[in-house]
Amino acid sequence: MPAAAHEPEVIRDKAAMRAWSRRRRAEGKVVALVPTMGFLHDGHLSLVSAAVAAAAGPVAVVVSIYVNPSQFAPTEDLATYPSDFAGDLRKLAATGAVAAVFCPPDLYVRGGRPDASESGGAISCLEQGDGYGHETWIRVERLEKGLCGSSRPVFFRGVATVVAKLFNIVEPDIAVFGKKDYQQWRVICRMVHDLDFAIEIIGSEIVREADGLAMSSRNVHLSCEEREKALSISRSLVNARTAALNGNSHGQQIKDQIVQTLEEAGGQVDYVEIVEQESLTPVERIDRPAVICVAAWFGKVRLIDNIEIQPPS
Amino acid sequence: MPAAAHEPEVIRDKAAMRAWSRRRRAEGKVVALVPTMGFLHDGHLSLVSAAVAAAAGPVAVVVSIYVNPSQFAPTEDLATYPSDFAGDLRKLAATGAVAAVFCPPDLYVRGGRPDASESGGAISCLEQGDGYGHETWIRVERLEKGLCGSSRPVFFRGVATVVAKLFNIVEPDIAVFGKKDYQQWRVICRMVHDLDFAIEIIGSEIVREADGLAMSSRNVHLSCEEREKALSISRSLVNARTAALNGNSHGQQIKDQIVQTLEEAGGQVDYVEIVEQESLTPVERIDRPAVICVAAWFGKVRLIDNIEIQPPS
Repeated sequence: MPAAAHEPEVIRDKAAMRAWSRRRRAEGKVVALVPTMGFLHDGHLSLVSAAVAAAAGPVAVVVSIYVNPSQFAPTEDLATYPSDFAGDLRKLAATGAVAAVFCPPDLYVRGGRPDASESGGAISCLEQGDGYGHETWIRVERLEKGLCGSSRPVFFRGVATVVAKLFNIVEPDIAVFGKKDYQQWRVICRMVHDLDFAIEIIGSEIVREADGLAMSSRNVHLSCEEREKALSISRSLVNARTAALNGNSHGQQIKDQIVQTLEEAGGQVDYVEIVEQESLTPVERIDRPAVICVAAWFGKVRLIDNIEIQPPS
Repeated sequence: MPAAAHEPEVIRDKAAMRAWSRRRRAEGKVVALVPTMGFLHDGHLSLVSAAVAAAAGPVAVVVSIYVNPSQFAPTEDLATYPSDFAGDLRKLAATGAVAAVFCPPDLYVRGGRPDASESGGAISCLEQGDGYGHETWIRVERLEKGLCGSSRPVFFRGVATVVAKLFNIVEPDIAVFGKKDYQQWRVICRMVHDLDFAIEIIGSEIVREADGLAMSSRNVHLSCEEREKALSISRSLVNARTAALNGNSHGQQIKDQIVQTLEEAGGQVDYVEIVEQESLTPVERIDRPAVICVAAWFGKVRLIDNIEIQPPS
């Protein structure tokens, strides 16, 4: 059982969070933020470890838990996104490495008029607002296109905006993002660079189940059968990398092979793309560092995965 | 002659600016930012005074001087925007209240490829980029529309983005904006609120020449005759307020009168609008706090001005 000293402090208020963070920095600690949407798994906990490793000294790790409504389109799974706050707290306490958990009830304005409560309801990135609600959005205009941006048109606008808000509230020195959400990680890197945030962004490796399935909070919605079929994603990616490292650099052939494998397993492919690692520009041949990105539906669950390839020079 | 201790420190590097600012804050000072595009006049100097007044204690005032290319459309006057850095420094030193002047040579990425220099040139908000240049933009989607946003479609996107960059570099506690650029001030207030910047925004009153002309760096481009004609702006605004306070709350009548006055003086009206002070929503009757905003061309110079009206309740 972890010592009481390792229990993270739970903070719900923006101003309290910022004051906490400033105190830690004044004590000489590096403040590291791990943004999550909760329902934590070992992938998230590896982000905490990455934060500690990146700080290389006294560190105060803040894990934020907030299911960001603005990154879900109205047709998406905001309503069924899984949550287990008590379980999350227990897992974070067990790491002994998390100093605070930031879980705001809401991060957006819902109107400033006296009668605003009447028009309540969840904010969506598609909502235009009445002139008194949240209306400021950050777009990383090129990187947000393609890959997940094609089928989730408001996703990266919502992600970039809420991450900027978290950055301004927590004021971290370091922030850690999982490379499973590869495009998201690159979008955030670019935003930080372009807007001059004084924050080092760490991209943390994908954590997989023993059988290869990339960990995801959404995996809980897979039936046993769907879960088995979904293994075709990681299997096809590993095979693709092997082929590429063995000399098959032909992008279209590799993509076709992955699509075939996923479809044979009963998956519905959203996209399979091979892109440059930093710019996410599509490549025809894998003759430079690239990443193969996949999104596919198994049942009602949309899964994403990717694999980086450094071809032999 | 001001004492040497009052000479502002000139800082050109982003990292040096941030380090300077953090040192001042660690010394217990409030850091106040006054963003400008240079060619300073008494209006700008009043922003410095407002910064000192707002801090109400030990303060380190930073004046940034940067002509932001991304807020100018290709058809606008970026190339002829006036500058006088030596004069600006002299004026700031004479206030005895400015601790640092931040004047970066450039605030934007111009490509990250090895061959990026070949594709150089000024960044524009209209430029899509090649995937390696600046691509992150902040939009305050409702407030950026209307008024100046109608005739300057990229203006507020450029303003919001560069101000966010300056905020992240200087990390001020306070930032001061002139209410002459009324819509800009409201856009920045909204951005700060929506993105949770820990910065207090001060709106500072318009400073006018003795004859009523609102101070502007662009006034230098007016001929004597144009300058005389341009007095119709402030004159018509004062008359409009008098009419409103005397019971004429009919917005269209008031606007028509202003348009007529400006056109009789030889001005070419861009817009005359009466809007709510915070939301900038058009009002038909001046029965609540409102602001009349005007933009008009005199010769080749586009001038803006406004007047706030608090109707008797």
